[in-house]
Amino acid sequence: MSTETIPNWLEKRVALTPERPAIHTQESSITFEELRTQAMSMAGKLTSLGVKKGSHVAIYANNSLDFVRFVHAISYIGAVGVFLNTRLTKREISFQLKDADCDVVIYDQDISSIIEDLGEELAIRSHSFAEISKQNESPYEPQLEVAMDEVYTILYTSGTTGNPKGVMLTYGNHWWSAVSSALNLGLSEEDHWLATLPLFHVGGLSLLFKNVIYGMPITLLTSFDEQEIHNAIMEKGVTIVSVVSVMLKRLLAQLHVDEAYPSSFRCMLLGGGPAPKPLLEEAASKQVPVIQTYGMTETSSQIVTLSAQDALWKIGSAGKPLFPAQLTILNNHQKTGAQTIGEIVVKGPMVTSGYYKRPEANEETIQDGWLFTGDLGYVDEEGFLYVVDRRKDMIISGGENIYPAEIEEVLLGVDSIKEVGVIGQDDDRWGEVPVAFVVLHEGVSLSTEEIYSHCVRALAKYKIPKMIYFEDYLPRNASNKLLRRELGNWLKKRGNAE
Amino acid sequence: MSTETIPNWLEKRVALTPERPAIHTQESSITFEELRTQAMSMAGKLTSLGVKKGSHVAIYANNSLDFVRFVHAISYIGAVGVFLNTRLTKREISFQLKDADCDVVIYDQDISSIIEDLGEELAIRSHSFAEISKQNESPYEPQLEVAMDEVYTILYTSGTTGNPKGVMLTYGNHWWSAVSSALNLGLSEEDHWLATLPLFHVGGLSLLFKNVIYGMPITLLTSFDEQEIHNAIMEKGVTIVSVVSVMLKRLLAQLHVDEAYPSSFRCMLLGGGPAPKPLLEEAASKQVPVIQTYGMTETSSQIVTLSAQDALWKIGSAGKPLFPAQLTILNNHQKTGAQTIGEIVVKGPMVTSGYYKRPEANEETIQDGWLFTGDLGYVDEEGFLYVVDRRKDMIISGGENIYPAEIEEVLLGVDSIKEVGVIGQDDDRWGEVPVAFVVLHEGVSLSTEEIYSHCVRALAKYKIPKMIYFEDYLPRNASNKLLRRELGNWLKKRGNAE
Repeated sequence: MSTETIPNWLEKRVALTPERPAIHTQESSITFEELRTQAMSMAGKLTSLGVKKGSHVAIYANNSLDFVRFVHAISYIGAVGVFLNTRLTKREISFQLKDADCDVVIYDQDISSIIEDLGEELAIRSHSFAEISKQNESPYEPQLEVAMDEVYTILYTSGTTGNPKGVMLTYGNHWWSAVSSALNLGLSEEDHWLATLPLFHVGGLSLLFKNVIYGMPITLLTSFDEQEIHNAIMEKGVTIVSVVSVMLKRLLAQLHVDEAYPSSFRCMLLGGGPAPKPLLEEAASKQVPVIQTYGMTETSSQIVTLSAQDALWKIGSAGKPLFPAQLTILNNHQKTGAQTIGEIVVKGPMVTSGYYKRPEANEETIQDGWLFTGDLGYVDEEGFLYVVDRRKDMIISGGENIYPAEIEEVLLGVDSIKEVGVIGQDDDRWGEVPVAFVVLHEGVSLSTEEIYSHCVRALAKYKIPKMIYFEDYLPRNASNKLLRRELGNWLKKRGNAE
Repeated sequence: MSTETIPNWLEKRVALTPERPAIHTQESSITFEELRTQAMSMAGKLTSLGVKKGSHVAIYANNSLDFVRFVHAISYIGAVGVFLNTRLTKREISFQLKDADCDVVIYDQDISSIIEDLGEELAIRSHSFAEISKQNESPYEPQLEVAMDEVYTILYTSGTTGNPKGVMLTYGNHWWSAVSSALNLGLSEEDHWLATLPLFHVGGLSLLFKNVIYGMPITLLTSFDEQEIHNAIMEKGVTIVSVVSVMLKRLLAQLHVDEAYPSSFRCMLLGGGPAPKPLLEEAASKQVPVIQTYGMTETSSQIVTLSAQDALWKIGSAGKPLFPAQLTILNNHQKTGAQTIGEIVVKGPMVTSGYYKRPEANEETIQDGWLFTGDLGYVDEEGFLYVVDRRKDMIISGGENIYPAEIEEVLLGVDSIKEVGVIGQDDDRWGEVPVAFVVLHEGVSLSTEEIYSHCVRALAKYKIPKMIYFEDYLPRNASNKLLRRELGNWLKKRGNAE
């Protein structure tokens, strides 16, 4: 059988409902037909800059209409998009640009410094949106069908060890993700999704595909502003909002005791890590429907989600695997029974075919179509998933994933530092923040400020430890492995002592 | 890339919503969990009768719970279902059983005569539902995943020439059909579909897949009874009904002037051939939402459908191709412009991979994934399809497709008949009925009754010509081809003369 192809999504959407509003921003609204015209125009301009079918094109930008146009422009050209987290440092961006074999990087001129520096260093062409808009359009053959097994996007994700890895997601992965979500949440002509998450993360990006596949308008916010989100829910007919816990917390604070969301508001889709139960109970008490979900870049966003009907009696659960997906909990390669914690292993057509140029990681992570997530959880007797801990040691801060190993590596690059251990500390605003325990070489001294100035060059701001604790030794087991759990106890003792 | 697999649909549905009502009949209601238990039990019994993965198992039954159990039982075993039209004659059934290489035929003991005769004649094992229910269950390995490119069902369809052909539909075809329909109609927890069409046709069968994929209850009627359908809409919370034009007409007659369907009623999905405009206008004037659709066995049911928002301002159109589908109108292999009639050619993942054991027909009908339907139509400037005529010469009577060639062949088997031409005549109750123009050999005589007694043995009742017109000659062109259009004129003249 030949590869499944279906119509280009934006093209098809315009054929079905050209006049329907597609994207609202703070400044303007455009229809699907207008979006198509603009995306095709950008495709022509990118073509004149040498982008062609199969090119790897990185984008470095925050949420904007240009970002949306870009996502569809590359689908018309048949290029692969590499989505860069704008919070990363030059060092981190540089790695991803090289690792993904990018031919060109497109960036927002308002946040250009890193890219302008890097372009020259790496000999990768770079063009700002402003520059592209002035370009002439070159003719190209628009890709009016998309092949389900063709790679559409690469998004980087860090692991417990080693360098970040580029997750390849195909048109098919994103398609199944959108369809699976609709089979769970339902689909109504009144739907209107608020996009508050960064489009360079899969949770935000996936809304752009739902947008065209469902024919559902989205409101795009350029940054998280709880007041603005609150207003959009109360007054603008928004029916669904994707949030992470820290955002939910801030939104609930906006909702006064005698206030309620309009009845047309369907739900907060809550992802990005385990949610504290008191927060979920506060939402329930305020009649705010919260649907918890579990997913990651490798699963094109959600793969396990609560349904509306289960949301209230299964508070704290991430739900059941979406219709085309499967879930199993493994312990020493054995399936565990209900209520027994093990590694969360998932399968489904929304799961990545693999990491870009990482055969070993692929072999280790994906076996017979099953993705070993490294996250810990259990299912109850009715098959509902409870996520106990995200990938071993991962810290989730304001929805961003942070791997201690990455920070430790950077700190160990400081001459005076002999040993280091990083863990997450509870934080009211961000959920968690990283903190570091440091042992210096004998006889040397080092100030917190000196450590910070080193970190600022190497780590995205949200990854920089919020506290440095100087110690004489670190807790290790017999085979000298760092005992992070014990570091957690140290942290608690300090907290109690304060 | 390996073949896409997803969980067995009923199995997955039970994992998600075990307690939800699945099927309502006049007598009872069962949940998805009960349906699963019953289907798995039937699978065990079929296994004990020798059915195994890959077996071709025919079913000869009218709508019933046993039918539904059967459809899921074969999915657990991995057998292929061959769905027989119970209106057909022994001759027609015999052909399909042999052509589809059936290993066994399952039938309803209440309509058993044909199958009991045939079983012996064809040396094909046959078992009634009653017999199966008394069987012991044998262990088998339930197929807990289904492969998208594996054939699930074979349904026969006639063509303009030659024998009926078995349309192979895969799990993937039926999956995409269900998902595509949801992307067009939306999906709500309140949905409840009334199944009035025979399950042995694709329009009825497809509801069984929507049932488990959406988690949507269906009410199954064993036969078309306008009073009962009317009551189900008015009182039982039914939100969608699939109908063909003659059924719609009879339903509208049930709706009194001062009556209206409840506001929860979403639509009549109208398929099975072009609908007369006055009928659609009557529906509109009675506030009955009608969504016209176009499809056929080869497209797993709908492939082109109106959307709710277009239903009223595009009365008479069959709509636009569903999201994953494409449509083009060809005239002499050239794409026509708007408003120009040509052959309707469609493409999409719900389109059959081919007819069973018919390489020539496949080569002719499916080219580069495009299905040449043989139907005539045009699109307007906005891309809406208008079906002008179903496959050349096809007669649609009460939703059943009738091919004149098949009737002509049977009549030519009568010794005294020299020439014959069959066309459709307008009929108040059935939309159309077949009528035959007959030329006898010189010097012989033959009564209408003698012709009927021949037909009864060879043709399903709905295919038997309702009138026989004896003529001295038939209208033919220079190359001796029968001019059916001219026969139509003869019919009109007779009508006017009466």
